[in-house]
Amino acid sequence: MQYNSDMTTSSDLALLCEQIAILKLLPRSGWLQRGIALPESIAAHSYGVATLALAVAGLFPELDRGRILALALVHDVGEALLTDLPLTAQNLLGEGVKHEAERRAAEAVLSRLPNGADLVGLWAEYRAGATQEARLIKALDRIELLAQALAYEQAGNRNLAEFWRRWDAGWDEFPQLGELAAELHARR
Amino acid sequence: MQYNSDMTTSSDLALLCEQIAILKLLPRSGWLQRGIALPESIAAHSYGVATLALAVAGLFPELDRGRILALALVHDVGEALLTDLPLTAQNLLGEGVKHEAERRAAEAVLSRLPNGADLVGLWAEYRAGATQEARLIKALDRIELLAQALAYEQAGNRNLAEFWRRWDAGWDEFPQLGELAAELHARR
Amino acid sequence: MQYNSDMTTSSDLALLCEQIAILKLLPRSGWLQRGIALPESIAAHSYGVATLALAVAGLFPELDRGRILALALVHDVGEALLTDLPLTAQNLLGEGVKHEAERRAAEAVLSRLPNGADLVGLWAEYRAGATQEARLIKALDRIELLAQALAYEQAGNRNLAEFWRRWDAGWDEFPQLGELAAELHARR
Amino acid sequence: MQYNSDMTTSSDLALLCEQIAILKLLPRSGWLQRGIALPESIAAHSYGVATLALAVAGLFPELDRGRILALALVHDVGEALLTDLPLTAQNLLGEGVKHEAERRAAEAVLSRLPNGADLVGLWAEYRAGATQEARLIKALDRIELLAQALAYEQAGNRNLAEFWRRWDAGWDEFPQLGELAAELHARR
Amino acid sequence: MQYNSDMTTSSDLALLCEQIAILKLLPRSGWLQRGIALPESIAAHSYGVATLALAVAGLFPELDRGRILALALVHDVGEALLTDLPLTAQNLLGEGVKHEAERRAAEAVLSRLPNGADLVGLWAEYRAGATQEARLIKALDRIELLAQALAYEQAGNRNLAEFWRRWDAGWDEFPQLGELAAELHARR
Amino acid sequence: MQYNSDMTTSSDLALLCEQIAILKLLPRSGWLQRGIALPESIAAHSYGVATLALAVAGLFPELDRGRILALALVHDVGEALLTDLPLTAQNLLGEGVKHEAERRAAEAVLSRLPNGADLVGLWAEYRAGATQEARLIKALDRIELLAQALAYEQAGNRNLAEFWRRWDAGWDEFPQLGELAAELHARR
Repeated sequence: MQYNSDMTTSSDLALLCEQIAILKLLPRSGWLQRGIALPESIAAHSYGVATLALAVAGLFPELDRGRILALALVHDVGEALLTDLPLTAQNLLGEGVKHEAERRAAEAVLSRLPNGADLVGLWAEYRAGATQEARLIKALDRIELLAQALAYEQAGNRNLAEFWRRWDAGWDEFPQLGELAAELHARR
Repeated sequence: MQYNSDMTTSSDLALLCEQIAILKLLPRSGWLQRGIALPESIAAHSYGVATLALAVAGLFPELDRGRILALALVHDVGEALLTDLPLTAQNLLGEGVKHEAERRAAEAVLSRLPNGADLVGLWAEYRAGATQEARLIKALDRIELLAQALAYEQAGNRNLAEFWRRWDAGWDEFPQLGELAAELHARR
Repeated sequence: MQYNSDMTTSSDLALLCEQIAILKLLPRSGWLQRGIALPESIAAHSYGVATLALAVAGLFPELDRGRILALALVHDVGEALLTDLPLTAQNLLGEGVKHEAERRAAEAVLSRLPNGADLVGLWAEYRAGATQEARLIKALDRIELLAQALAYEQAGNRNLAEFWRRWDAGWDEFPQLGELAAELHARR
Repeated sequence: MQYNSDMTTSSDLALLCEQIAILKLLPRSGWLQRGIALPESIAAHSYGVATLALAVAGLFPELDRGRILALALVHDVGEALLTDLPLTAQNLLGEGVKHEAERRAAEAVLSRLPNGADLVGLWAEYRAGATQEARLIKALDRIELLAQALAYEQAGNRNLAEFWRRWDAGWDEFPQLGELAAELHARR
Repeated sequence: MQYNSDMTTSSDLALLCEQIAILKLLPRSGWLQRGIALPESIAAHSYGVATLALAVAGLFPELDRGRILALALVHDVGEALLTDLPLTAQNLLGEGVKHEAERRAAEAVLSRLPNGADLVGLWAEYRAGATQEARLIKALDRIELLAQALAYEQAGNRNLAEFWRRWDAGWDEFPQLGELAAELHARR
Repeated sequence: MQYNSDMTTSSDLALLCEQIAILKLLPRSGWLQRGIALPESIAAHSYGVATLALAVAGLFPELDRGRILALALVHDVGEALLTDLPLTAQNLLGEGVKHEAERRAAEAVLSRLPNGADLVGLWAEYRAGATQEARLIKALDRIELLAQALAYEQAGNRNLAEFWRRWDAGWDEFPQLGELAAELHARR
C-alpha cells in the first residue's frame, strides 16, 4: 500500500511521539482553576483511566478488554491539539461546538496512524457511548476524576466540593463503580 | 443605584479576585506545546503587554494612555473562564466560534463589575481593532510574544522558530514597534 | 531629539522586555516563607493590582483612571533588579534604606524609557502616596494580598493568619475597599 | 466468591487509585540526574508506551492488541511502591535484586485486584519477554525513551547523548520500530 | 603522590559537583507518595540535618562537632546514584540489600575524593551507629523529617500522620532531642 | 542555666527548623533573573558548599575541618530572613548596607541557639575572611556557583556567560581550587 509506506509511518509515528510529549505537559485545567499549582497532565489522567480500566475489566468478563483499553487510550488524545477545556470553557463554547472540535482533534491525531480509520472509529464509539465498553470508559473517566480530587483534598485543597456534587448518581449500568465512588467519597 | 449596591459590588469584585488568582495559574499553552515545562501564566503575559504599553505610550503622544492601559488589561481577562487556546485549538474551533466564545467570556468576567458596560466596550474595541489604541495593543501582544520567545530561547529552548516566522511583517501602523521587533530578533 | 533616537529606544525597550521576563519568574517571597512552593510571580501580582484598579475605577469617577492604571503598573517594576523583599528583610534593612533602594531600582528600570522622567515621577507619586490615585493603588496592593492569601488558604495553606491581622483597619479613604476586604475575610 | 466481595473490591480499587495518584507524581529519575528539573512522571511515561502500543498495533496484525495494551499498562505499575530506579541504582543493586523487587512490587499492586492473578501473569510475561507482545512493549519502552529524550533536547538539554548510544541496535524483531528510532534520531 | 595528582583530583571533584547538582534535583520520594507535588530535594534535607547538627552541637559539648558535621554531610550522599528509596521500596528490597547498595553508593561517590578512605569510614560509622556522633545524626535525621512533615502539614497536607507514629519513642540517648520532637509535635 | 533552659532551647530549635524549611524554598534569585524557572534553593546551595568543603578538606590538612564545615553551614543562614539578594540588588543597596543587614540576619537566626555567640562569631569570621578557613569557604562559594552554572548550561541555558567572567582570577591562596575552576570551565 502506498499510503503507509514505512517512511510515512515512521514520520506519522514520530509526530504522535511529539503529541504524547505535549500531553505530558498540558495540565488538566480544572485543577488550575481551583488553585492547584502543579496539577496532573492529560497524559497522567489518561494513564489513570486506562489502568483503572485494566483493573476493573475483571469485573466485567462479558466486555472486550482490549477494546476497553483502546477506548481509554484514545479518549483524550485530541487534547494535544485542543488542550483540556474545563467546564467553564465548554459552557462558553456550547456543547455542539466542543464536540465537533474534539472530533476534528481526534481525527487529526489518529487518522494517519496505522489502522487510523479503526482508531478514529474507536474515538467516535467513545464519544457516542455507543457500546457498553465506551460507557464503561466514560464512567471510569468520572471515577478517575473523583480519585484525583480525593488525592488533592488529602494534599490540602478545600476548593473541590463541586466535583463531588451528585457523585452517587449515574452508576446504574455499572453498580460496582458506584460502590467504588462511595468508597472514595467515604475517604474524604 | 440598585444594581451596584455595595454588597453586590463587593461580591462581584471578590469574584474578580478569584478570576485573577486563576489567571495567575493558567499557563500560556503554546509554550507547553513546545516543551516549556513551567511557562508564564496568562496574568504574567497580560502584565507584560500592559507594562510595554505604558512604556511605549511616550512614543505615541497622540494616543490616549489611559485607554491603552485599560485595553491591555482587559484583552485576555476572559481566559480565566475560556483558558488560553493555542493556535492548534483555534484552527480546530474555527475563528468565528473562538471569537464568539471569547466575547462571551469577556462579558462574563467584566459585565457585572462597576462600569461593566464600559469595560465590555473596551474589550470589543480591542477585539475589533476599532481604534488606534486597540491596534497598538494587538501589536504589543505580538511584541510580548516575541520577547518571551527570545527569553525562552536564551533559556535553551530550540522549538520556537515558528514564532519568528514573518516577525518583520505587519508593523506599518507602528514602525517603532517594528524596530523593536528587529531588535529582539537581532538578540536571538 | 538625540537621546531617544529610535535605535536607543529599541534597545531600551528590549531591556524592559528582559526585565518583564524576570518579573514573571521572580516570586513574591513572603509566600515562600510560609510554605507555598510555587507562588505567584511579581508580574502576576502587579497584574492583579492593575486589573483590580481597572475594575474599581468605576467606583471612583472623580479619579483619573489612566493615572491609576499607570501607577499600578510601575509600583513594583523595580523589583526586577531588587527582588521582592519580604517584611523580614525590610525589618533588617530599615525602612529608609529599603525606600532608597526601591527608588534607585525604579529609576534604573524606568528613566531611560520614552517619557522616562514622567514614569519615574509616577513611581515617586506612588511611593509618597501623594495623590488619591496613589493611595488607591496602595490600598489595592493590600486587597490583592488578601485576595491571594484567601486563594492560598482555599488551596490548603494554614500559615497565613498574620496577613489577616488588622485586615479591617485603614480603609477610611476608600470604604468600598474596606467592604471588599470584609467580603474576602468572610470567605475564609 | 468470598475473596472479591464487592466491599473488598472497592477497597482494593481505591488503593489502586492511590497508587495511580502516586505514579502521577513520581518522576522518571534518570531525567533528574541529567538536569531536567520537572521531568515526566512514571504515569506519563506509561501512557506514552501504551499509546504508542495502540498506534503500532496496526503494524502487527498477527499480535493480540488487547494483550499488548495490557502489558504496556502493567509494565511499570510496581514503581508506585519501588519508585523509578535509574541505571545507576540498578547497577548498585544488581540485576537479580532489582528484578526480584520489581516482581514483588508488581504483585503487591496487582494481586488483589479483580483477576489479579491474570494481571500478575501479564507482568511476569512482560518481565520475561515471554511473548512477542511482551517483547514489543520492551521495544516500545525504548522508543518512548528516545522520543522523550528528543523532546528534552529540543527543549534545550545537552546532557542526553548516552540515551542515544546504540540507538540503532536491537530492532531485529521489529524493524519498523528501528525505522521509527532512526526517524527520531534524524530529528535531533 | 601519584593517585591524587592535581589533575585527578580536579576531575574527581568536578564529578562530585555533578553529583551535588543531582542531589539538588532528586526529591525525597516519600513526600511525593503523599501528594506533595514539589517536595524538598535530598540536598535540602541533608542541609537541614547538618544545620541542625551544628545548632545542637552546643548541647553536647562532649561530642566532636567537626565529626558530627561530617557525618551529617556524608549520610545521604550516595543517593545521587541510588536515589531516595522510600519505605515501601526498602520493604520490597529487604534491609540487607538496601544497606549493601547504600554502602556501594557511598563508596562510589566518596572513595576517589581526597582523603576518600576517611570519608568512606565516616559513612560506615554513620551506617553502623558506631559512635555517639553517628547516633546523634541518626536522631537528627528523624528530627528533620518531623520538622519537614510539620512544615508540609502547615502548608495543608493531611496525609502525613504516619510520620508522627511513635514520634516520642527512641530518644533515650538524646533526651533534648525528644523535647524538640515534642515541641514540633505540639505545633501540629 | 536560665538562658538555655530546655524549654527555651526546644522552642529556639523549632524556630530554626522553620527557617531551614524556608531556606529549602527560597530560590537563589540570580538564576531566576537568567531564565531558570525552577532554580536551586538556598539550602541546596549551602549543602553544595558544605559538601565541597568536606571533600576538599583533605587537600588542606593544616586547616581545621570542623571549623570549615561550620563556616559553610552558617554562611547563608541569614537568608531565611533576608532572602538571596542578587548582584543587582546588592548594587542598589550598597555594600555597607547589605553587609549590615546580613550581619543582623545571621544574628537573628543564630544568636539564641545553644552556643549562639560562638555561631555568630563563626559567621563574622566568614564575613571578614578572618581566617584561612573562612577564605576557603568564600572560594568554595565561588566554585559552587561555577559548578551550578555549568549544570544549568548543560541543561540548556545560554544566559550564564557573566558567571564565568574572570573565572580564572583570585585563586592565589587555594591554587587547587583554581585547577578545579579550570576543570569546570573546560567542561562547558
